[in-house]
Amino acid sequence: MSSDTTDDAARERLIDMAAQFYDQFAAGEIPNMQLPTRSKSNIVFDEDADVWVYGDRTSTRSANSASGARKLLKAIYTIDFLAQQLEEDRSSTLRELYYLSESWDEEAAQFNGQSESDKLVEDLEIVSGVKREDFHMRPEESGAKVMGPLRIREQTNRGDREIHCQDDVGQGGYQIPNNPDTIEFLDHDVDFVLCVETGGMRDRLVENGFDDDYNALVVHLGGQPARATRRLTKRLHDELDLPVTVFTDGDPWSYRIFGSVSYGSIKSAHLSEYLATPEAQFIGIRPADIVEYDLPTDPLSDSDVNALESELEDPRFQSEFWTEQIELQLDIGKKAEQQALASRGLDFVTDTYLPERLGEMGVL
Amino acid sequence: MSSDTTDDAARERLIDMAAQFYDQFAAGEIPNMQLPTRSKSNIVFDEDADVWVYGDRTSTRSANSASGARKLLKAIYTIDFLAQQLEEDRSSTLRELYYLSESWDEEAAQFNGQSESDKLVEDLEIVSGVKREDFHMRPEESGAKVMGPLRIREQTNRGDREIHCQDDVGQGGYQIPNNPDTIEFLDHDVDFVLCVETGGMRDRLVENGFDDDYNALVVHLGGQPARATRRLTKRLHDELDLPVTVFTDGDPWSYRIFGSVSYGSIKSAHLSEYLATPEAQFIGIRPADIVEYDLPTDPLSDSDVNALESELEDPRFQSEFWTEQIELQLDIGKKAEQQALASRGLDFVTDTYLPERLGEMGVL
Repeated sequence: MSSDTTDDAARERLIDMAAQFYDQFAAGEIPNMQLPTRSKSNIVFDEDADVWVYGDRTSTRSANSASGARKLLKAIYTIDFLAQQLEEDRSSTLRELYYLSESWDEEAAQFNGQSESDKLVEDLEIVSGVKREDFHMRPEESGAKVMGPLRIREQTNRGDREIHCQDDVGQGGYQIPNNPDTIEFLDHDVDFVLCVETGGMRDRLVENGFDDDYNALVVHLGGQPARATRRLTKRLHDELDLPVTVFTDGDPWSYRIFGSVSYGSIKSAHLSEYLATPEAQFIGIRPADIVEYDLPTDPLSDSDVNALESELEDPRFQSEFWTEQIELQLDIGKKAEQQALASRGLDFVTDTYLPERLGEMGVL
Repeated sequence: MSSDTTDDAARERLIDMAAQFYDQFAAGEIPNMQLPTRSKSNIVFDEDADVWVYGDRTSTRSANSASGARKLLKAIYTIDFLAQQLEEDRSSTLRELYYLSESWDEEAAQFNGQSESDKLVEDLEIVSGVKREDFHMRPEESGAKVMGPLRIREQTNRGDREIHCQDDVGQGGYQIPNNPDTIEFLDHDVDFVLCVETGGMRDRLVENGFDDDYNALVVHLGGQPARATRRLTKRLHDELDLPVTVFTDGDPWSYRIFGSVSYGSIKSAHLSEYLATPEAQFIGIRPADIVEYDLPTDPLSDSDVNALESELEDPRFQSEFWTEQIELQLDIGKKAEQQALASRGLDFVTDTYLPERLGEMGVL
């Protein structure tokens, strides 16, 4: 749970939005809501924050049509629910909100599908400038798990817990809660954060004691990382001043995983400042690694090629490094997984690959 | 890691298999390996253990063809690798084994794909009667997480850890390690085990304090449960004599999730005695609940209908209860998710649905 101040502020912003509709009515205007246009063509680089955010183009939701009026009605019912949830210090998931709407007295306010309620909550985040977590909307997906020399205090709904992320946890590590802003960093011996895509590689690093030998905080991403995982990574960087590195498979989907840690996603560009860690560095697997280490590979599929070509166009991948790597990959027509490093032996990744690469990157 | 005795026993069984090939050679026989036929038609109910296991039909892997000989060669290389891994007290994943084979000197022993090496390890499990985990083959997928009044000791590769699964963990709970046989149950106030399919419902139960109010051990399944999760559930039942209940969505795929906890799967019928908890009871969502509680639903898709019809034929679902429920569902043509209970309010599940149902079932 967030602190009471955050709750009060979030609640106030919600009420403000409702009040705005009221004022529009009172002034004889047709109620409406302005939103940034949420497409790839409307994300711009924010030089100050060093992240990609929505640009100036806006769309208007207006009650000047029956469907527009229904959208605003749903927004008002949702605001009412969220404000009440904050007052009672409860929380809920996006899916619960969708189902809960079935209990609303006004049938026209009920959602037709979860995509509709999900999108509305995102709209409310954007307009209010308050994160979903501060509305006490929990994500469906859990955050991942953490292993390394870090002691934290987590506020749970049954009291505070102090946990050392090596000494007080099992082999599985510390499970990140849905809202990592309930975590306070107490003390640590961490030199850098190592985000790892796959569970198999995460387990390899932990079994080989990499976190212990190199004072690494190993954060398991588990594919496309949950918001909770990205938020924690961001906080580790900003508050503890730790370098953040990302270790994934060597294919276009994994570069997007790096991108979502580093640059933020188009879908949540309004949250880049909370979730993105622009200083995050990409370890690999790089297409150049496939060549250099002669890794076992799979051929690129048509959808891999399309994804790589789309990344070449993506403003977030317009650096010399990424252009070179992506072009090399299209040229060799191959991709490789993290665990392909096992073809050089089970310890190659911790004895050779990571120490060498992290040395070159200036992290070690 | 397992204890040394288990390691030695597993190693011995592996060497026995290799020795058997040697003896066949020495006797002038063509080396071969007998395996139970692994199909739905060859699973039978074991009355003693109350689980479904493979029947009497067997298939033979023989070196009497080039492809058969290559299969046995791969088996021998794999046995050699596993025996060495046990000797060194290391572990690896199925995927690592596949990649590692690329480093083997004999090219014909290398695997052509991971499905080949996965299947071979299963064959070795079946023939040797030793679980994959005892070969120190870690699953790729992690076990899920646990919350409830249970204190455990876990042997990790950096020493023992004592953890209370409410007091010593965050809101995310205790993360089950890949090999739950490293866990020792110390003491507990648990009255029953409640396995939950979705993360959203797991978080709802934890937020509402259901584990605390009812002395429930909430085990998150996270979809089709990992082996580690099923093994832990089995051990909780057998060693602590706890009733096991399963709470899922109300659709044919979720009934299979219940089935894999309760009856074991066709793919791992040789492990039913280690993984299946035949006494597990199904809470719901039942098709009858959809009618009784007037839950928000989705229509059954064609593949849902096919899956339900196939369950009607499945020997594991041949009870009066399941036949009735499945026929009712085909009749109403609808399915519902766990979180659809939120349409009656966020506390309906913990205040009304679960206490009533668990009461009827004789668990509360």
